[in-house]
Amino acid sequence: MRVLVLVLVPLLLAAQADALDLEKLTRHVDGRVASYVQTLREWVAVESDSSDVSKRPELHHMMNLTADKLRSLGGKVEMVDIGLQELPDGKSIPLPKVVTAQFGEDPSKHTVCIYGHVDVQPAKKEDGWATEPYNLTDINGNLYGRGASDNKAPVLAWIHTVEAYKALDMELPVNVKFLIEGMEETGSNGLEAMIIAQRDTFFLDVDYIIISDCGWLSRRPALTYGTRGNCYFFAEVEGPKQDLHSGVYGGTVIEPMTDLIGILGEYTLISPSGKILIPGIREAVAPFSDEEWKMYQDIEFDMENYKEKLGVKDLMYNNKVDLLAHRWRYPTVSIHGIEGAFSASGSKTVIPAKVTGKFSIRQVPNMDPATVKKQVTEYLHSVFAKRKSPNSLKVTMIIGAKPWLADTQHSLYEAGKEAIKKVFQVEPDLIREGGTIPVARTFQDVTEKSIIMLPIGGFDDGLHSQNEKMSRYNYIEGTKLFIAYLHEVAQIKKV
Amino acid sequence: MRVLVLVLVPLLLAAQADALDLEKLTRHVDGRVASYVQTLREWVAVESDSSDVSKRPELHHMMNLTADKLRSLGGKVEMVDIGLQELPDGKSIPLPKVVTAQFGEDPSKHTVCIYGHVDVQPAKKEDGWATEPYNLTDINGNLYGRGASDNKAPVLAWIHTVEAYKALDMELPVNVKFLIEGMEETGSNGLEAMIIAQRDTFFLDVDYIIISDCGWLSRRPALTYGTRGNCYFFAEVEGPKQDLHSGVYGGTVIEPMTDLIGILGEYTLISPSGKILIPGIREAVAPFSDEEWKMYQDIEFDMENYKEKLGVKDLMYNNKVDLLAHRWRYPTVSIHGIEGAFSASGSKTVIPAKVTGKFSIRQVPNMDPATVKKQVTEYLHSVFAKRKSPNSLKVTMIIGAKPWLADTQHSLYEAGKEAIKKVFQVEPDLIREGGTIPVARTFQDVTEKSIIMLPIGGFDDGLHSQNEKMSRYNYIEGTKLFIAYLHEVAQIKKV
Repeated sequence: MRVLVLVLVPLLLAAQADALDLEKLTRHVDGRVASYVQTLREWVAVESDSSDVSKRPELHHMMNLTADKLRSLGGKVEMVDIGLQELPDGKSIPLPKVVTAQFGEDPSKHTVCIYGHVDVQPAKKEDGWATEPYNLTDINGNLYGRGASDNKAPVLAWIHTVEAYKALDMELPVNVKFLIEGMEETGSNGLEAMIIAQRDTFFLDVDYIIISDCGWLSRRPALTYGTRGNCYFFAEVEGPKQDLHSGVYGGTVIEPMTDLIGILGEYTLISPSGKILIPGIREAVAPFSDEEWKMYQDIEFDMENYKEKLGVKDLMYNNKVDLLAHRWRYPTVSIHGIEGAFSASGSKTVIPAKVTGKFSIRQVPNMDPATVKKQVTEYLHSVFAKRKSPNSLKVTMIIGAKPWLADTQHSLYEAGKEAIKKVFQVEPDLIREGGTIPVARTFQDVTEKSIIMLPIGGFDDGLHSQNEKMSRYNYIEGTKLFIAYLHEVAQIKKV
Repeated sequence: MRVLVLVLVPLLLAAQADALDLEKLTRHVDGRVASYVQTLREWVAVESDSSDVSKRPELHHMMNLTADKLRSLGGKVEMVDIGLQELPDGKSIPLPKVVTAQFGEDPSKHTVCIYGHVDVQPAKKEDGWATEPYNLTDINGNLYGRGASDNKAPVLAWIHTVEAYKALDMELPVNVKFLIEGMEETGSNGLEAMIIAQRDTFFLDVDYIIISDCGWLSRRPALTYGTRGNCYFFAEVEGPKQDLHSGVYGGTVIEPMTDLIGILGEYTLISPSGKILIPGIREAVAPFSDEEWKMYQDIEFDMENYKEKLGVKDLMYNNKVDLLAHRWRYPTVSIHGIEGAFSASGSKTVIPAKVTGKFSIRQVPNMDPATVKKQVTEYLHSVFAKRKSPNSLKVTMIIGAKPWLADTQHSLYEAGKEAIKKVFQVEPDLIREGGTIPVARTFQDVTEKSIIMLPIGGFDDGLHSQNEKMSRYNYIEGTKLFIAYLHEVAQIKKV
């Protein structure tokens, strides 16, 4: 009994101290709301649109702001040169530097690396914004502005987390590193090479990587444990050596567009109800287990709201589990468009000579891009061969990004569940993203570290869309979540 | 016997006089070659591109040049104001005036009206021209330049015809009118209203309309007796209220592109070998008679050359009669492209919210655009209904141009055959155009006059393409053909 007391008392005391610390930190955050919003306003005011090269000076300025902020908290900050960006006209301009920072290097503690980005999607008032996109505007507790949710507020929430400890002169429970980039919205140009180059330096002592570049599914906080990959195909049908007038030549040549539409069309790629018809694709998908079904069943998701948001009469599936499963853990085929055909408004009587159909297949476990490439290529060629067309078909896979999936029982996720329970008093939704977040897969493949996606963005934040916002609630409570999360991570047994 | 002599002698004398006249005129033409080429050079030098509004001053200048030329020959010339052209930005600019001219008004003679145009398609050296497109360049007897064959040389050949009579102080065998427009290449904007307005004035005494805005099929001279019409359709499938990210939303919505490709695809509009599958379309086509088959069989046409010119491995039909029949007297379906989908280079993971497929069906006797509209609309809706899609389909016919067909036994065509025999010592090919020449149909419907298409362009002139040319041979012998043709027309019995 005494032995037990001897063991338990320090544990209880530690837990009590921890609870007290958290309470102090939380109170600090509550006292800093106006200042946090002001910093977000300053960051949103920088038009760090990475897709528009004319905005490159703003983007460089944004990286400097980020570095300054991290430096002001006493971090060991570096601005890593990741080289040049080649432009379509053959010129090159410098990529925005990647900002890395380090707070603490106690070998007895875990080291986490926070990944985020401070570049944004394009935005113009006339696109349909109710407010000036680069002037953060508070309406009923929602902070409207481009980049507010994607990804400036989450990056700041992590910085405020560190700042809170510094302000209270408290020791960080884990070592914290930052890796903040400025090209995420245009494909993280230069990042993979940088990660590879720093695998044995910056990443050497990193235990866990945390990504907060996504959102919840509903009003309930969530942990994200998977993203789909993507295989993007070009199917190019080539016929006459140049475009022909359809009046003069129509009826004498087998037209490439007829061939292309034929091989992409009904009963080839995907059935009217959404069933993928390419042999072998569906068979590769990991079976949907009963536990998974149960997990999906527990997720908070409003079908009617989703339908209304998209503006469609009916969804592909009329029950929550099937719908979410096909959004996250089943493959799907999307036909994006055709290059080389007439695509302007008005009418043109052309027989396009060479047309390239573009479609992609979202990847999920246990699909393998190399196998998918083979399946799609062989299938399209076999369908095309049946047409006995004099035209030629070339199938190319131009992107082959693998899906990413984490183990929701991993201690990183258990820590996340605990932190969410402490801050929000609920169990989190365990969700996936239908899209591809290639950096997660890159981190995993290159560094072999464990990764968690810990979102604080709202389900209706309008990323990449007009009227993007971050709610004040998510921004502030999100900061508290990050603080609580670091405490939970500190308690993971060191191995 | 005496009676017969009394009747025959004046006829023989007249025929002899006519032959002498023709010989003198022919000799005159041969003596003017350098001057004719020089005039064509001056006309080609005017960049009268009607599609480029920045070239509008050049186009106005071209109309003035044409009027001056006709005036210099003593014609009664008018420049008819046909109003304004509305531009996409809402502004309006004046249309080029239509030039009309009249030579002779002897009521005992026939009156012909020559239709032509002096505007051109765009051309730039860097498009792949071997020579400067607006600098007429003579290479081995071919006169290269934009608009040389389409339609400046034929218009000039008609003007030279009149000029030859004037120069030799000979009376024109028929009254000759001209109607020369400057908007043909962009759809003859304003012309139909002008023709309607002048139906009972300018056109009142016109007996025949002659169009020389087409070409031969081979090296053998031809008469053109038909053109196909065209029904142009938009099939618009609309789904979500805005474009969606295919990663985030793919698998939860029935995508409009899948629907559109499905209803345009294999076994819907047209089979892989070119058979139209829309019910009722093939049934409406006028039967292919044995006489017609024979006529097609007699046409000079080099399949290998055609195949090589288009750069295709195989044509839709491997025998001359079927190929030409499907080029001219059978309908065909061409899918031109899709508006609203991704059409640029590169990859984009978009689910387009609204996509408009554009296709057209060439019209031949006895198809009726109103019926075709109904057949296509009902068929597409029935195919779409089977998909049970939540998206909506809207089918619109935006052009419904009827085919045009002349009677090859008509005295106008008999006159053409005679003239060709006299100038070229061969029987002409009787051919059609696969494309639509709407002005022919407009003339026929509005004025109810008989029309002939009398081409002098070569089969390989490259209209609308790079390296357009008119051969010196066709230009000069074409002028002689026009002279001979007027003589033949003069001999048509006045009714």
